[in-house]
Amino acid sequence: MAKKKPLVSIVMGSDSDLPVMKEAASALEKFGIAYEIKVMSAHRTPDMSADFARNARKKGRKVIIAGAGGAAHLAGVIAAHTTLPVIGVPITSALDGLDSLLSTVQMPSGIPVATVAIGRAGATNAGILAAQIIGTSSKPMEKRLKAHKRELVRKVQAKNRKLEKQLG
Amino acid sequence: MAKKKPLVSIVMGSDSDLPVMKEAASALEKFGIAYEIKVMSAHRTPDMSADFARNARKKGRKVIIAGAGGAAHLAGVIAAHTTLPVIGVPITSALDGLDSLLSTVQMPSGIPVATVAIGRAGATNAGILAAQIIGTSSKPMEKRLKAHKRELVRKVQAKNRKLEKQLG
Amino acid sequence: MAKKKPLVSIVMGSDSDLPVMKEAASALEKFGIAYEIKVMSAHRTPDMSADFARNARKKGRKVIIAGAGGAAHLAGVIAAHTTLPVIGVPITSALDGLDSLLSTVQMPSGIPVATVAIGRAGATNAGILAAQIIGTSSKPMEKRLKAHKRELVRKVQAKNRKLEKQLG
Amino acid sequence: MAKKKPLVSIVMGSDSDLPVMKEAASALEKFGIAYEIKVMSAHRTPDMSADFARNARKKGRKVIIAGAGGAAHLAGVIAAHTTLPVIGVPITSALDGLDSLLSTVQMPSGIPVATVAIGRAGATNAGILAAQIIGTSSKPMEKRLKAHKRELVRKVQAKNRKLEKQLG
Amino acid sequence: MAKKKPLVSIVMGSDSDLPVMKEAASALEKFGIAYEIKVMSAHRTPDMSADFARNARKKGRKVIIAGAGGAAHLAGVIAAHTTLPVIGVPITSALDGLDSLLSTVQMPSGIPVATVAIGRAGATNAGILAAQIIGTSSKPMEKRLKAHKRELVRKVQAKNRKLEKQLG
Amino acid sequence: MAKKKPLVSIVMGSDSDLPVMKEAASALEKFGIAYEIKVMSAHRTPDMSADFARNARKKGRKVIIAGAGGAAHLAGVIAAHTTLPVIGVPITSALDGLDSLLSTVQMPSGIPVATVAIGRAGATNAGILAAQIIGTSSKPMEKRLKAHKRELVRKVQAKNRKLEKQLG
Amino acid sequence: MAKKKPLVSIVMGSDSDLPVMKEAASALEKFGIAYEIKVMSAHRTPDMSADFARNARKKGRKVIIAGAGGAAHLAGVIAAHTTLPVIGVPITSALDGLDSLLSTVQMPSGIPVATVAIGRAGATNAGILAAQIIGTSSKPMEKRLKAHKRELVRKVQAKNRKLEKQLG
Amino acid sequence: MAKKKPLVSIVMGSDSDLPVMKEAASALEKFGIAYEIKVMSAHRTPDMSADFARNARKKGRKVIIAGAGGAAHLAGVIAAHTTLPVIGVPITSALDGLDSLLSTVQMPSGIPVATVAIGRAGATNAGILAAQIIGTSSKPMEKRLKAHKRELVRKVQAKNRKLEKQLG
Repeated sequence: MAKKKPLVSIVMGSDSDLPVMKEAASALEKFGIAYEIKVMSAHRTPDMSADFARNARKKGRKVIIAGAGGAAHLAGVIAAHTTLPVIGVPITSALDGLDSLLSTVQMPSGIPVATVAIGRAGATNAGILAAQIIGTSSKPMEKRLKAHKRELVRKVQAKNRKLEKQLG
Repeated sequence: MAKKKPLVSIVMGSDSDLPVMKEAASALEKFGIAYEIKVMSAHRTPDMSADFARNARKKGRKVIIAGAGGAAHLAGVIAAHTTLPVIGVPITSALDGLDSLLSTVQMPSGIPVATVAIGRAGATNAGILAAQIIGTSSKPMEKRLKAHKRELVRKVQAKNRKLEKQLG
Repeated sequence: MAKKKPLVSIVMGSDSDLPVMKEAASALEKFGIAYEIKVMSAHRTPDMSADFARNARKKGRKVIIAGAGGAAHLAGVIAAHTTLPVIGVPITSALDGLDSLLSTVQMPSGIPVATVAIGRAGATNAGILAAQIIGTSSKPMEKRLKAHKRELVRKVQAKNRKLEKQLG
Repeated sequence: MAKKKPLVSIVMGSDSDLPVMKEAASALEKFGIAYEIKVMSAHRTPDMSADFARNARKKGRKVIIAGAGGAAHLAGVIAAHTTLPVIGVPITSALDGLDSLLSTVQMPSGIPVATVAIGRAGATNAGILAAQIIGTSSKPMEKRLKAHKRELVRKVQAKNRKLEKQLG
Repeated sequence: MAKKKPLVSIVMGSDSDLPVMKEAASALEKFGIAYEIKVMSAHRTPDMSADFARNARKKGRKVIIAGAGGAAHLAGVIAAHTTLPVIGVPITSALDGLDSLLSTVQMPSGIPVATVAIGRAGATNAGILAAQIIGTSSKPMEKRLKAHKRELVRKVQAKNRKLEKQLG
Repeated sequence: MAKKKPLVSIVMGSDSDLPVMKEAASALEKFGIAYEIKVMSAHRTPDMSADFARNARKKGRKVIIAGAGGAAHLAGVIAAHTTLPVIGVPITSALDGLDSLLSTVQMPSGIPVATVAIGRAGATNAGILAAQIIGTSSKPMEKRLKAHKRELVRKVQAKNRKLEKQLG
Repeated sequence: MAKKKPLVSIVMGSDSDLPVMKEAASALEKFGIAYEIKVMSAHRTPDMSADFARNARKKGRKVIIAGAGGAAHLAGVIAAHTTLPVIGVPITSALDGLDSLLSTVQMPSGIPVATVAIGRAGATNAGILAAQIIGTSSKPMEKRLKAHKRELVRKVQAKNRKLEKQLG
Repeated sequence: MAKKKPLVSIVMGSDSDLPVMKEAASALEKFGIAYEIKVMSAHRTPDMSADFARNARKKGRKVIIAGAGGAAHLAGVIAAHTTLPVIGVPITSALDGLDSLLSTVQMPSGIPVATVAIGRAGATNAGILAAQIIGTSSKPMEKRLKAHKRELVRKVQAKNRKLEKQLG
């Protein structure tokens, strides 16, 4: 992790979620965004989670990314204690992540959680969404986001060239 | 509500849940169990919820019944802050209560929520389950629970007599 | 709508979605955020949707809120054409909104959509999430968000007083 | 198993459920609660199940934990024959445990089953919930439950230290 | 109901299920099959249900039709106590009958329940299936079943004639 | 297969279903019931399926067991062409068998399919259900069914003895 | 219906499906495509359905639209007997049409059904899809399809003008 | 791929979909239909997708087959830009393909997507459906489709002969 003050916190309910949540970290690194990663649980360490959320803005964070599975309350509980945007990543569980998704997204009126896709794709997108949020007030980030879009196009073009060769 | 010190707290995410959660109160009244009812939200009033849960045992509560819908985090958040048994009642929502059920029941290892059925039947059963828990250390409650079971049988017998006449 | 240049665009697949998406507008108004509302469809008016999304940043928008039901592609298609954060509101449909939710949230790696709850609660939360995103670079918005949280607490307290009287 | 008279019975529909239900036993052992484990089926041995349930209280049991999969009727059938609290553990099956969960939790008004999460996490939590129920009338158990909560916090703290070193 | 000894018993968890289960009775009447209707619950009157099932064959029953909703255990519990074929009718509930269907059909190896469709169509078909089972050893019933099939065809033909006139 | 005239036909949509449907054959063999097994498809060989169903009763069949997966139409299509009881076995597919189950069980009023559980347990139970249907008019079969129930009890008892030794 | 020889047949499982399937007819009329409507059931009139499908091509039909609900086998059974493209419309049922959708779309390899959305939107789209299929070999139809697309755009534009006035 | 001008385009959201979508290509080859395969994404390369769809008819394509997973917007986005029939293949994803299916099939009124089964069976059927569409105006294709149906029958007959030998 960079020495710059983190703009984004990545939190997750258990260290077993790290292989998924690392994708969020990778995405942030691509956009040059400093971040921190912490394990905390809405249920096992509720006070740590509340303290973390209450102080996140003061510490200079701009976005919080929270990943959890099953009855995935972490993102919602964090959102209850902060006015920062909170991005929820539903992690695959007993019911293929449907429980995690519904527990994360179906928040009551008043306290939103910005929910992304289940699993790794969602974690990557959480990082990109954080960059987009930061990009609403940062010209350099806006440029990197445009470069990211061009890269997506180039990758698809390369796949087509490869496919053409392969199928002849 | 009786003047006796409440043994059971009924909490719910919104006062719109009252028509459902009243059934829990009715069940407790049948068993002569004093209770209190409060509105509190895991997301809108997280500190109130945490304080409530932390102090519940000291105040003499033995069981907490928590009803919520959608991303129903209330029971889980209460359970995070107490060692009392917490009964969760999933309340019907956008997805017929499936989201509420999964958000309530799929708790991670370490912090259980005793989940009952979706909606009114669940609220009634939450009251009866509280009586059963209290009944594990109370002979009089045990007697009332046996009487309750006999009453269930009598009601079915009465229904059969009515049915016989009707179809006769 | 205010004469100020809109910071947020609310778009929806059909004018039949207006009763839901109005809640997003109401939330934005509470936070003093200028917005515009437009009907556009990923399928019926794909070029209008693409043009809209391509030009949104240039026109000064900071966030786009997109509501759609069924195979709800609007938010994803908008997100494909912009680097702004896009908030997706799944609108209730044939399958209670489960199809709308999955079509909105399960975006592939590379193009996030910040998805909120199904229906009205989601639309309200989309407005609040937009305020949170704007609040990452606006002190006044941060203050309004804190006031919003205090208001949520006061409303629950008022409900409890009312409940006490009612049951008292 | 301890020589003390069991306070908790763990029953399961098939011995193939043992790897899951052992987690309930492990949790009970942590809390120093004597238990017994038995195989019985609501469908294959209905009389054994009914006799077991009818006599459980007389034999000194305080809580019954029942695990079953598919059309998981065991917990409900046990609950029909006793006034003790019955905890249901839905075991993963053909439909990822959704069938087991719904068959266990959706009990009709009058006969509750305290349902926990699908699979191993649920089995562990069933043991903890039993301890919480016993803890409503036992100071020593209350202390062990508080220690359990502190242990959960310590484990998360240790994970964070490990994560810091790893990513550091 | 006819004075003939009933060949089929229709049982249901609650008298609120009567509007659905009457369709089974109507179907049996069409085939001239004597039946009885009783309310009994796997959970509220488990002994009545067990006794009923144990004695059904001795009393001359050939088929049992059991309707229930939610955690619909009735058909399974009846099947546990008899060697007669048991037909299960899932009755619509909180989750549109999906819980009832899964609780009825997902029986473990060894104890089948012949499950039909959710609700009224299922109740009608339970009656016809009972006729088909009786028809495996009754020539007159076989004839009535063939007549029933011809009637289905005639009804569709009549609908087509009506449609032609209407659209004409 | 025995040389006796088959009383039961087992049909399946594809030979890839054989590992599942063999369980039905094994169950029938236990009860001494002669059977035949055939591959036929509602979609690939509709005429073969219709001819088979139309002639099954004439050929002495008493019950037809049909297994299929996905849009599992085989049981329904067979039932359309016969007055014999048809047992449907939903076979696991892309959606864990939920599609197979719903396609098999949700038959319209007039044409029942006796549906059993998804997969192997269902196939075994299809064989037992066939025995129960034959047992409605056969004393020897009734005896074997009672013996089957006693065997189920003995197996559970043996499991308990084994478990006691193991946990001892 | 026009006197021209029908190019498209609309069939449905029951006349209760007419309010939905009329939308397919309306769409065909817009494109000037002659059609017929018939009630036929995969289960109640299997021979009529098979005969219809076998002869459809000879009679000059180019596309068949089949609507059915529940265990919706009609489209699949029609497809089994013809080489014409068959469009399946899942009609809302006990499970909100999820059962109808899965029964229609999950066809086995070899026999496709072109499935459209559940209910009225699906029926309209079935008509348009039929026009698109006919349009693959008809210049005039291609023109009408382009006009249809322009009309969709104009309608959205009109809605935006109305919305602007309304919100003004 | 043949040198003939392609009549069918197969497009897919990612080259990881190739193992599934190859089945569509194989089916087209069997029917002697020239095709092309391309990777394009509704989200990563929206302009490429729109351009492709706008020009497909001009280039002589008659049918487009689009495969995608998760929030599977590709088929819908293609359909938005063409009047050709578009066949959607839902590809298995986090939720077993249920999300892909609903995102593909639940299109709004006005823009149909002809959806086939999830995964490989669906891809094969997409190829056959394309042949059926082309066959509405091609006698030789009609003949090949009839031969295909006869082949399906022969394969089932061969499986039965094999089964008979195997089971003896």
